[in-house]
Amino acid sequence: METKISEKVINRLTLYHCILTDYLASNQEFISSKQIAQLLNIDDSQVRKDISMLNNSGKGRVGYIVKELKMSIEKTLGFKKTKNAFIIGAGNLGTALANYDNFTNYGLNIVALFDNDTRKIGKTVNNKLILDIAKLDNLTKKTGVDIAILTVPRQYAQSIADRLVKANIKYIWNFTPSVLSVPEGVQVWNENLMGNFLQFTYNI
Amino acid sequence: METKISEKVINRLTLYHCILTDYLASNQEFISSKQIAQLLNIDDSQVRKDISMLNNSGKGRVGYIVKELKMSIEKTLGFKKTKNAFIIGAGNLGTALANYDNFTNYGLNIVALFDNDTRKIGKTVNNKLILDIAKLDNLTKKTGVDIAILTVPRQYAQSIADRLVKANIKYIWNFTPSVLSVPEGVQVWNENLMGNFLQFTYNI
Repeated sequence: METKISEKVINRLTLYHCILTDYLASNQEFISSKQIAQLLNIDDSQVRKDISMLNNSGKGRVGYIVKELKMSIEKTLGFKKTKNAFIIGAGNLGTALANYDNFTNYGLNIVALFDNDTRKIGKTVNNKLILDIAKLDNLTKKTGVDIAILTVPRQYAQSIADRLVKANIKYIWNFTPSVLSVPEGVQVWNENLMGNFLQFTYNI
Repeated sequence: METKISEKVINRLTLYHCILTDYLASNQEFISSKQIAQLLNIDDSQVRKDISMLNNSGKGRVGYIVKELKMSIEKTLGFKKTKNAFIIGAGNLGTALANYDNFTNYGLNIVALFDNDTRKIGKTVNNKLILDIAKLDNLTKKTGVDIAILTVPRQYAQSIADRLVKANIKYIWNFTPSVLSVPEGVQVWNENLMGNFLQFTYNI
């Protein structure tokens, strides 16, 4: 697959994948673009166009073959190319994300969590160790992990981000409501929850 | 403010708001479009254009006045128009969201949580009661709350969504990795975390 896939298409393809996973779980063999479109409240021509970008769309006589379409999305989006990440902050959100088993299906492997709370350090969440944040530097060097999922309280966000940068983290998935200042070469994805909520409810 | 604001602009304005909150917290009075643009890795002409949509941009001699620009965003996006919501599922994610004090700054008020776990029912999270899911119907009628934040495990997502629809919930903010089937008149916002992650890391 050499074509560049836009962010919007990636987003939709992962939603199709969620639907296919549900279909598979309920033993449904086929799915139509219309069925997908209806669930997402979008146009079915859009669904067909997105799917046509996949190498093998799994098009059968009576719709797409669920299993094949699902595998095709996984291959195209690189779900099998495991990406290792650390979770920084073992609070409720960090714990929720560490427990989110769906991540592994998408190639995201949580290697460990980090915190500075001595009551948490040494414990496990979903079989992943909570480590002392002081050891982060060492661990990124040893493991080569360069993705961090940031779930610390707002007031620590920037100082911890500085620490991540020093430890050679290159990608920060930011769940805090703070916009981080990072040097060039480090990428931040702001999981802007309130922005999403306001987009959703703006017209209520 | 009569102009329709696009979802993308809403999203960016909330990010500007995060930055302004941080600036205010560190007692900085002024901010330039360049400073905002740099933090978000976008063009500063974009920032100026977005801000020009606000009724009062708080433009001063040496940049925008942080306090005024912040208030202006709040007014335009209706942060003061409180929206009441229930959280369905008092697990780690539901608890994390109930603890997310930032919500109230954006006009999102969590009225209560619901769960079916008798060990959780009756307890509180961040001063909000965890109630029996069996009482949902009654409570939506009494309170008029029509927004639900869905954080239950994947396998219960659809059956709980059916229940929410029956209880007259009109807006579902869906944090589960399941795509919900709902009747017309009910809106779902899929918080597609894995889609976001893959957009972020696709080129790694």
